[in-house]
Amino acid sequence: MAYVDQSYVPLEDAKVSVLHWGFRRADTVYDVVSVADGAFFKLDAHLDRFERSMKIFHMSLSESRSEIRNIMHELVRRSGLRNATVTTDCVRGLPPDGAVAIPANAPCYLIAYVKPYYTIVPRNVVERGAHMMVSSIPRIPARSVDHRAKNFHRADMTQASFEALRAGADHPILLDEHGNVTEGPGFNVFAVTNGVVVTPDQGMLEGITRQAVTEICRKLGINCEIRPLPVREMRDADEIFITSTAGGVIGVTRLDGRIFTNDRPGDVTRRLSDAYWSMRKQGWDCEPVTYRHWN
Amino acid sequence: MAYVDQSYVPLEDAKVSVLHWGFRRADTVYDVVSVADGAFFKLDAHLDRFERSMKIFHMSLSESRSEIRNIMHELVRRSGLRNATVTTDCVRGLPPDGAVAIPANAPCYLIAYVKPYYTIVPRNVVERGAHMMVSSIPRIPARSVDHRAKNFHRADMTQASFEALRAGADHPILLDEHGNVTEGPGFNVFAVTNGVVVTPDQGMLEGITRQAVTEICRKLGINCEIRPLPVREMRDADEIFITSTAGGVIGVTRLDGRIFTNDRPGDVTRRLSDAYWSMRKQGWDCEPVTYRHWN
Repeated sequence: MAYVDQSYVPLEDAKVSVLHWGFRRADTVYDVVSVADGAFFKLDAHLDRFERSMKIFHMSLSESRSEIRNIMHELVRRSGLRNATVTTDCVRGLPPDGAVAIPANAPCYLIAYVKPYYTIVPRNVVERGAHMMVSSIPRIPARSVDHRAKNFHRADMTQASFEALRAGADHPILLDEHGNVTEGPGFNVFAVTNGVVVTPDQGMLEGITRQAVTEICRKLGINCEIRPLPVREMRDADEIFITSTAGGVIGVTRLDGRIFTNDRPGDVTRRLSDAYWSMRKQGWDCEPVTYRHWN
Repeated sequence: MAYVDQSYVPLEDAKVSVLHWGFRRADTVYDVVSVADGAFFKLDAHLDRFERSMKIFHMSLSESRSEIRNIMHELVRRSGLRNATVTTDCVRGLPPDGAVAIPANAPCYLIAYVKPYYTIVPRNVVERGAHMMVSSIPRIPARSVDHRAKNFHRADMTQASFEALRAGADHPILLDEHGNVTEGPGFNVFAVTNGVVVTPDQGMLEGITRQAVTEICRKLGINCEIRPLPVREMRDADEIFITSTAGGVIGVTRLDGRIFTNDRPGDVTRRLSDAYWSMRKQGWDCEPVTYRHWN
């Protein structure tokens, strides 16, 4: 089920014209929110970020924030899904004739869709812990593309995914030009050393699950630092984990040659993952969907 | 008129699913060829580059090179257009279930379409010369995204276009991190100093019109250097021009505060532009389209 520029359509009809800038110039920003047990998680934080992304890319929609919220609820309601992800895309269209070079003249429009909940790695990988490699390809620098705007500039990550595939790893982790950790395709990265949790402060998307983990750390009395994370520090860490809306908190048990925490997710990772899901079950920052009777 | 994954369809039906990597991860490479007076220009050079782009992005199509060539001819034939651009996109689709992270599992498909010939600036701007600004936003480095693969990673250029718009310029020119000229949205950049034509050697798309200009220089006995072009050298040049399949050779008459060549395209620029179009009229590296009788 999808919503495309003012209409509800089946997901297979959710398409973008090849002429639109949203496709031809990757001129789209987006967000992905999860629904668990029939309730959105941190919907306002996602809507805040979606608005921030649009602002950074000089975009606006005809739908108001409350209309976008209603569309997201309606999509989940129509799907009947209790566990889902809802994606919102703000897509730049086509400038009117004679203004091929002026993006300001191209109207933007909203595409939204709902899918069954998924995890960025298969279930068995969540259990054994993900195997990662440090990619040789640096993440696109924030000076060129501001990754605080959630966007589709991911050829660096896709090339890195091919590298990881060749190396037998599940995913790559990308560094910046200075050798600090940034992120991987769809996830933030955390390292744990001597009980202190560290995650990068720049060069990556400011993930909502990353934010949630910092809140859980505060609640559990775990010291969490947001600062540059040199690759050497990550390689030498006691534990590594990643976070994503599509999977929550996922342990990393191998990084290049090294095996971490006995080849299974580490203790801090498990404490944070357990807290994440149990707090969500208890209704943390959730917004229930009102389903129809037949659901 | 368009061709989408094995079928001919109207251009308004040429669309990409929002789920496909070609859209969601800007995982598409493309090319744009011009047709003038009913003949393709340098079609083999464009097909070579399209194949090189696919290879760099780890892509392949089910259509062979000769099938792609035939599709391009058929599109122009069906359109009846004598002056046109033909665009070919190699779009990565959707990985099968359970392989969300593995691009190698997602098949790629061809979209191609024909449009009436256009120029990246309006006709009056070609005549007076384009007004440019040097953007504060560095081009995405080649280490992160290899721009020899013609691709859609253009948020840096789009942000720079907004900067240019605010400054009252027609287009931005982007530098690399070292202050060398790269390219602008859809065009290569040349500077002329003491009769020597210089164009950058890296960090930008290797344009086919750029290549054509180096050939014309050789023919006209003009010295042409392909090497790093520091922004200072461009600012101090005698002339500046840009090249694009969509417009050929176009003079630049203003760059930030400076007015060049009496506010009209310069002599070398005009010689190269005149030679470009007259050589094309004489059938230079052209491949005629066989139209139907009724055209």
